[in-house]
Order: sequence, then C-alpha cells, then structure tokens
Amino acid sequence: MRNIKLTIEYDGTNYCGWQIQKSNIKIKTIQGTIEGALKNILQENVKLIASGRTDAGVHAKGQVANFRTQSLLPVDSIKRALNSILPEEIRIKDVSEVDKSFHSRFSVRSKIYRYTIWQDSYCPPLSRFYATLIHCKLNLSSMRTAARYLIGCYDFRAFQTNATSYCNNTKRTIKNIKITKDGGFIYIDIEADGFLYNMVRSIAGTLIEVGRGYLRHTDIKRILESRDRRNAGPSAPCHGLCLMEVRYE
Amino acid sequence: MRNIKLTIEYDGTNYCGWQIQKSNIKIKTIQGTIEGALKNILQENVKLIASGRTDAGVHAKGQVANFRTQSLLPVDSIKRALNSILPEEIRIKDVSEVDKSFHSRFSVRSKIYRYTIWQDSYCPPLSRFYATLIHCKLNLSSMRTAARYLIGCYDFRAFQTNATSYCNNTKRTIKNIKITKDGGFIYIDIEADGFLYNMVRSIAGTLIEVGRGYLRHTDIKRILESRDRRNAGPSAPCHGLCLMEVRYE
Repeated sequence: MRNIKLTIEYDGTNYCGWQIQKSNIKIKTIQGTIEGALKNILQENVKLIASGRTDAGVHAKGQVANFRTQSLLPVDSIKRALNSILPEEIRIKDVSEVDKSFHSRFSVRSKIYRYTIWQDSYCPPLSRFYATLIHCKLNLSSMRTAARYLIGCYDFRAFQTNATSYCNNTKRTIKNIKITKDGGFIYIDIEADGFLYNMVRSIAGTLIEVGRGYLRHTDIKRILESRDRRNAGPSAPCHGLCLMEVRYE
Repeated sequence: MRNIKLTIEYDGTNYCGWQIQKSNIKIKTIQGTIEGALKNILQENVKLIASGRTDAGVHAKGQVANFRTQSLLPVDSIKRALNSILPEEIRIKDVSEVDKSFHSRFSVRSKIYRYTIWQDSYCPPLSRFYATLIHCKLNLSSMRTAARYLIGCYDFRAFQTNATSYCNNTKRTIKNIKITKDGGFIYIDIEADGFLYNMVRSIAGTLIEVGRGYLRHTDIKRILESRDRRNAGPSAPCHGLCLMEVRYE
C-alpha cells in the first residue's frame, strides 16, 4: 500500500468543518468531499487522516492529510484529477508519496494557526469571511506582553472549550506567538506542538480582551494557572481562524 | 439641498454591477441596494451618481458616489445607519458633505483600477472571487515594456468593448500602469483620467497575452493605432477587477 500525503487549502465558510459527521453523513465536510473525490479517481474507498480537525467556518492554507491506497496513479495525476473534481472552495496544493510510517497527526512537529482581526468601524466586504471585526483600537503592546506568558510548556486546560470532548492530557508547548499589524489587519500567529479543542480561538479571544483593556496582561498568568475555562475570555469567532502550516520532522 | 459624498467598498460577486437596470428593477445592483437603504434612512428618494459604473462581478475598494438631500442628518449618523442596514457585501468607508458643485463623475481627476492575477496551477480558495487564475508563467518584463506604449493621451477605441454602448470620444489619458508581483499574485494597476467601457479588462487581457508570449510587446503599439477592438486580446474575467480609488481635484 502506498502512503500519500496531501497539502490542502480550503475556504471553510460553507463547510461543517473538516471531519465527517457519522451521525449525519449528508452534512458537507472537507474530509467527506475529498474522500468522495478520491473514491471517484482511485475507484477504491480511502480514509483521510488529517493533522487535526478544523471547525465549521475555519479555513486552511496548509492542512495536511494522508491516506493509503493500492492505486499506482502518479502523484501529479492525483493532484490534477482532484483539483478538476473538487469544488473551488477546496484546492490540493501538493501531493507526494511518503514513507509508510508517516502519519499526518502523530508525526506532527508543530502547527501554525493565524487568527485575523480587522480593526475599524466596519469589516471590508472582500475580507468579511476571513477576518473578525473589532471596533475599538487594540493595545498591541499589552497583547504582546500577555502572549509571552503563554509561550512554553503548560497545562492549557483554561483555553480548552467544549466540555463534551475534554482531552485528558492538556499539556501543550506553544513555541511562538507573533502579533503583527498590516494596515487595518492584525494577525495573531501561534505555533505549538499541538492544540486543544478551540485553544487558538480561546487564546485569541482572551488576547483581544487584553487589547481592549478588559483584562490586564498579568491576568493571563492567573488564567493559565487556574486551569479553569471560565476565567479566560470568550472564544473568538471561527471565520477569523486559518490553519497556515503543519510542520513535520 | 446638501450634497453628500460616499466612499464605498463592495464585493461585486453576487451583484449585477453598479447601475440600476431600468428594464428590470428587481435585479440586484449596488446602486439600487444603497439607494434603497438611503430611502429607508432619509425618508426621501435620492439618486446616487457614481464616478462610473462597474460591471457584474467587479469589486470596489474606493468607489465614490454622491447624492442630494433635504435631510439634516449628520454625516456620521448616515454612515452608521447605512452600515447597519446594508448587506455585508457593501460597506460605506466615508461620508462627507461636499460643495454643491461636486459631481462624482464630472469632477474626477483620475481613477485607479487594479487587475489581480494568480499565477499557478490552481487558484487559492480564499482568493477565488478576487483573482484570475493564469496557469503559465507570465513574462512580467515584457508586460511592463508593452504597458509603456499605453501611457499617455491616446484614442483607446481598440480597448473598448460592447458595440451597443460605443462612446464617441474615445480619447483618454493613462497616467500610469504599474505591474507588480507579491508571492503568487500579479497586480496590474492602471491610473487614467477616465476609462472606456471594458477598457481595463481589455488592456489586462492584452497584457496577459504579451506575458504568455502570444503577442510581442511591440504589437501593443500596432493594436492601439489600429483603433480596432478585434486586434486586442480578450477581456480578462470580471472578478479579477477592482476599482481601488477615485481622485478629485
């Protein structure tokens, strides 16, 4: 069996997230759409394993997924065939054959998410699906100071939402958080060895509260140590989030 | 009567262009949508005069339009009210009261359009409504040389499409054409004192032919002088076009 790795870009606006919903197979998901296209091309059922799920409305510029296949179709042909079948909201950037041991999720070294904010009285129509509108002027300097408390290996339970899927091992290592400004856009780029459920959106929401002045930057340390989700800020909306890159060894 | 100037940003994807279609008032247009919102806010019928029409699917980051009104509502309130009523595809960036003599179309000094190309084997999903996909590598140096033949005051009849609305005075002055690259994006920015119908898309389409090597850069001079639309390249697709700015005295 060959092991094939896909690098995928998608606009998540009209999709119910990455993962196929077993309770309702008719719901439109990224995984389901690509698996359907692969079945068509390879004439066999394949199961896509992604680096991680993305939620409904969340985008990706560099999601990675792999699947095993009996097919001998060259990787370039798979890429071309997928991009001609898939809806234009999903595009395959790269297809390559990888070692049998490669696993999109377990082999991850780090993942980089970007949270995009537009700071003004209105959201530019051309960015409305990809940026979250914040009306007030954010204090970026406070946000950067606050972010520093989150860099390192910690128990990030305070930034994990959705009680039904709580993860037991809530230790993660955030390698870097960069907060940059480009015109009206503010980007929060977070690189970690892994993320808990809704972790980026909880962190973005909490950093926004710091930027607004509703929380002090020193509060972040207290929130992190409390390991209690109720102390952190709200989850920032899904459409501002994009999985930028997945890094492997 | 006060004279009010609006600066408008819109995603033209789902609109049949700027101008109200008198033959079918139900067709969704940018002008019709904003006039409807203004009627609601000001409780009077107003007529919006734009710097120029944009076609179906064409976007704007800086369209300008003005209207006359009896209303004494402050400009900030008009802006806030419009942005709360309008669909999120249309946003009012600025509202100001201007001199009685100001006319969005006749007072124009220059307009800047941007044509956006994405050069790769696929179009990134997040830019699919705002960039035109070109599969082959364009020769930007040839395109820049070709563009130079178009800068100045000429009869641009060869770059005017749609025989039904031919304009008699086809002389225009192109002040500048800049062709730049940013990652996979190629931008063609054209500033002129005015544009003929479909002129930017015809020029973009012709410059793309030069970039592909189907036309030589010296052909541009011949096409311009022929004053015959059949000699120029095809019109580039509407969704790559955006009205960036309208400049006044």
